[in-house]
Amino acid sequence: MAKRKEFETVILEVEDGIATMTLNRPDKMNAFTGQMMLDMIAAFDETDADDDVKAVIVTGSGDRAFCAGADLSAGGATFDYEKRQDSGEAGRTSQEDLQRDGGGRVTLRIYESLKPVIGAINGAAVGIGVTMQLPMDIRLASDNARFGFVFARRGIVPEACSSWFLPRLVGISQALDWCYSGRVFPAAEAKAGGLVKEIYPQAELMDAARAIAREIIDNTAPVSVSLTRQMMWQMLGANHPMEAHKVDSRAIYERGKTGDAKEGVMSFLEKRKPEYPEKVSDGIAPHYPWYPKPKFEWPEKAE
Amino acid sequence: MAKRKEFETVILEVEDGIATMTLNRPDKMNAFTGQMMLDMIAAFDETDADDDVKAVIVTGSGDRAFCAGADLSAGGATFDYEKRQDSGEAGRTSQEDLQRDGGGRVTLRIYESLKPVIGAINGAAVGIGVTMQLPMDIRLASDNARFGFVFARRGIVPEACSSWFLPRLVGISQALDWCYSGRVFPAAEAKAGGLVKEIYPQAELMDAARAIAREIIDNTAPVSVSLTRQMMWQMLGANHPMEAHKVDSRAIYERGKTGDAKEGVMSFLEKRKPEYPEKVSDGIAPHYPWYPKPKFEWPEKAE
Amino acid sequence: MAKRKEFETVILEVEDGIATMTLNRPDKMNAFTGQMMLDMIAAFDETDADDDVKAVIVTGSGDRAFCAGADLSAGGATFDYEKRQDSGEAGRTSQEDLQRDGGGRVTLRIYESLKPVIGAINGAAVGIGVTMQLPMDIRLASDNARFGFVFARRGIVPEACSSWFLPRLVGISQALDWCYSGRVFPAAEAKAGGLVKEIYPQAELMDAARAIAREIIDNTAPVSVSLTRQMMWQMLGANHPMEAHKVDSRAIYERGKTGDAKEGVMSFLEKRKPEYPEKVSDGIAPHYPWYPKPKFEWPEKAE
Repeated sequence: MAKRKEFETVILEVEDGIATMTLNRPDKMNAFTGQMMLDMIAAFDETDADDDVKAVIVTGSGDRAFCAGADLSAGGATFDYEKRQDSGEAGRTSQEDLQRDGGGRVTLRIYESLKPVIGAINGAAVGIGVTMQLPMDIRLASDNARFGFVFARRGIVPEACSSWFLPRLVGISQALDWCYSGRVFPAAEAKAGGLVKEIYPQAELMDAARAIAREIIDNTAPVSVSLTRQMMWQMLGANHPMEAHKVDSRAIYERGKTGDAKEGVMSFLEKRKPEYPEKVSDGIAPHYPWYPKPKFEWPEKAE
Repeated sequence: MAKRKEFETVILEVEDGIATMTLNRPDKMNAFTGQMMLDMIAAFDETDADDDVKAVIVTGSGDRAFCAGADLSAGGATFDYEKRQDSGEAGRTSQEDLQRDGGGRVTLRIYESLKPVIGAINGAAVGIGVTMQLPMDIRLASDNARFGFVFARRGIVPEACSSWFLPRLVGISQALDWCYSGRVFPAAEAKAGGLVKEIYPQAELMDAARAIAREIIDNTAPVSVSLTRQMMWQMLGANHPMEAHKVDSRAIYERGKTGDAKEGVMSFLEKRKPEYPEKVSDGIAPHYPWYPKPKFEWPEKAE
Repeated sequence: MAKRKEFETVILEVEDGIATMTLNRPDKMNAFTGQMMLDMIAAFDETDADDDVKAVIVTGSGDRAFCAGADLSAGGATFDYEKRQDSGEAGRTSQEDLQRDGGGRVTLRIYESLKPVIGAINGAAVGIGVTMQLPMDIRLASDNARFGFVFARRGIVPEACSSWFLPRLVGISQALDWCYSGRVFPAAEAKAGGLVKEIYPQAELMDAARAIAREIIDNTAPVSVSLTRQMMWQMLGANHPMEAHKVDSRAIYERGKTGDAKEGVMSFLEKRKPEYPEKVSDGIAPHYPWYPKPKFEWPEKAE
C-alpha cells in the first residue's frame, strides 16, 4: 500500500519498502532554500521512523535538474546571512540559523539516517545540489546530469561538511581539482572520478536505483542493514580498528541471539527466502549510539 | 632448509624466506572455527618471531575455497554465543571469548604482524573468509575466487573490524554496496572494486604471490620493511601528518646509524646485491611501539 | 610583470599569477640537501606572502630528473645524522636538525601552503624526490618520469610524513606494495596507481600544469581557494563531519559578507568575468587557523 506526503518543497512517497524523496521546485530547478532544508530533515525523520521504509532514493523533480544549488534570487546578498537574518525566510531566523550552514544541517542528518540512501541524480547538481549527495551511500546519474563544486567561483567555500566527505569519496587530489576550479562537469567525469557509480539514460535512472534498493530489501535483515550503515560511516572517522572491534563484537553478540540471526542461517541452509522478524523502530542495538553526539560551536582562532 | 608446523586447522611452512600459512579444513571448505582463530593467532606469533620469515602468504587448502566463512554446523544457534558458551569449543569458553568477536581477534593480530602479509585467495571467501583478508597488505585472487560480505543476509553485521578496514580499502560507497546487498560476487568485481590487486588462473596463483614476496626479500632490509608496515597502518588512523613526522624522524635517525643503512647505500653505489645485517627479532626501533596498545571493552550506549 | 628570485638550490619565478619553483641542481639530478630544505621552505614563505601568486608549480631543472633523492655523496654515512652533525652543512647543525627529518619539514610546510600546489614531475623522482610531492594537490608527469619509494632498499624507512600522505592518496595496499619492494617504476604505473593525474610528453608538461593553474586563477576568488585548501587537508584527518560543519559554517558566514561573495554571485548572474576584491595577505578568515599547531617531539616507546 503506497503512502504519500507532501512537504512544501519535498514529496515523500513510500511503496514496496522504498521511499522516494523528490526535491520539488521544478520551476526553480529545485534550487535549495531554508524551507527545503527543513523539509529534507523532516522527511528523513519520517523515513527513519517508518518500518515500511527499508531504503531511500533521493531525486529531483522534472528532467532538467536534481538541485541547481542555492536559490540566488537574493542576488549579491545571497550568502550574506547577517543581512538576511530578519527576512523571515524559513530556516533563516534564529541565531543558530545564522551561525550554522544550512547545507551541513542536511548532510549531518543524512549521515545519521537509519536507512540506506541512494542518490538518483537526474540533471544539474551544483553547489549544495552536489554536496548534499556526499553522505548518501551510492550515487547514480542520468546521462544529462552535470556537477559543479562552484563555491570558489561564488567567492565562498565548499560547505555542507564537504571538506570531510569529498576527499573520503574521491581522494584529496580529485576533491581539490574540482573545488579549486569550480568548473561544471558532465556525468562521465563524475564517474571517472569516483563520485557516481554508474550512468543511465534518464528514462532508466529510477529503475536502476530501485533495483539496488530491491536487492537490499529482498535479501537482508533491516536491523542488520541499519547497524551496518552506522558502523561503516562512524568507523570512517575512527583512529584504530579496535574501535570497530568493540562495536562489532557487541553487535554480533546482541544480534546473534535474535530471531534475525536464526532466520538468516536457517533460510540459507534451507535455501528459501528469509523472513526477518526484527524491526528498526524497536532499536537497532542496546549500545547504539555508542558515541556521544558532537555539538556545534562557533570555531575561534586557535592560540 | 624448509620448516613445517601443523596446527589443528592451519599448516605453516617456511622456505626461502617465505612462510605459507594454509587454512586447512578442506572437507569443510576451510570454514572458520574458534580453533582456527587460536591457530591463526599462534601461527602469526611464529612468523613474527622467526627471522627466517620475511613475508607471509595466507591461502586455503584445496581448490574450492579460501575460507567459506563461519562453520554453520550449529545451525540457528551459530551466532548465539551465549547459548554456545558452555559447549567447550576451543576459543568459545571464557567471558572474553563470549564478549569479543573471534574474527576481530584474528584481524587485529594480522594488523600487528611484523612481516608483510599477502593473501592468495584460491576460491570461495565469504563472511569471515573475506573480512580476515582486509588487514593483509596485498590480495591476489584465482579466477574461480568469489567473495561475499553476507552478514546482513545472516541477520548479523560485518565483523572482524571490517567497518574500519573495508571503507579504507575500497571506499565507503563500494563497502556499503557490498555489505548492504550481501551478494556473493566474482573475482572480476573484486578487482574492479579495488579489493584484489590481480587475478590469476588457479594454477598460477601461488607463483604470483611468491613473486611479490621474492621481490621484497631479495632487495630490501627486513627491519625497514617491518617498520614500514607498522608506520603505514598506524598512520592510516592518525589525525595529522605531524604524527608521522615524529615517528619517521626518529626511525630515520635510528636506522641511519645501522649497518643496514650503510649497506643499503653502499650496495646501491657499488651496484651489487645487498646483505643487510640487522634482524627483526632484535627489535625494530627503540621507540617501537610508540603508541599505547588500545584495550578492549564492552561498549555502552553514550549519554 | 615577471619576478625572479634565486635561492642557492631553488629558482622562484612569478608571472601571470603563477609561481614556478624549480629545484636547481641539474648536474646532481636535483638531489636533495639540507640547503634545498631551507630554500624550499623559504620559497613557500614567499609564495604565501605574495598576493601576485595564485598557484604554485614545482618542477626540476633539466630534462632528466625532478629530484633524484637524497644526495648520496657522503656514502655509507649519508643517513648517519649523528656522525654528520658537525659537518657544518646547512640544515644539519642544530639539535632540532639532528632529531627532525628534513624531508618532513618540507612536506609539513607544503601541507600548510596558502596557495594551490601543482607538481610537474619532469623526470626521475626517487626517495625524497617522490615523498615531497605527496602534500602537493595535483601531480602531472612527463612520459620519461619514474618514481621510487626506495627507502627499504637503502636500509631506512619512508620519510617526509609519507606514511600519513601516501595511503591517503593511493590506498594502503598500493602504498605498501611500492614501499615494500622499493622498486623504481614508470609514469604509467604511477598513473594507474593514482599517484599522478595525467602523463604528457616532456615538452608539453609545463603547459599542462599552467593550464590547470590558469583555470583556477581566471575564475575563482583567491581567498576562497586558500580556505578550501586548508579545510580539505585538515578535514582529511578529522574524526567527524561535525568538525567540518563548524569550520565551514563560520567560513560561509564570514565570506558571505565580503565583496568576493557579492562579486561571485553578481558576475555569474550577469554572465561576465569576475573581479574579486579580497586578498589572501589580509587574512583568509578570522577563525583561521582554527586548530592548534601540533608540536614536534621525540617519540618514546609507549608504556
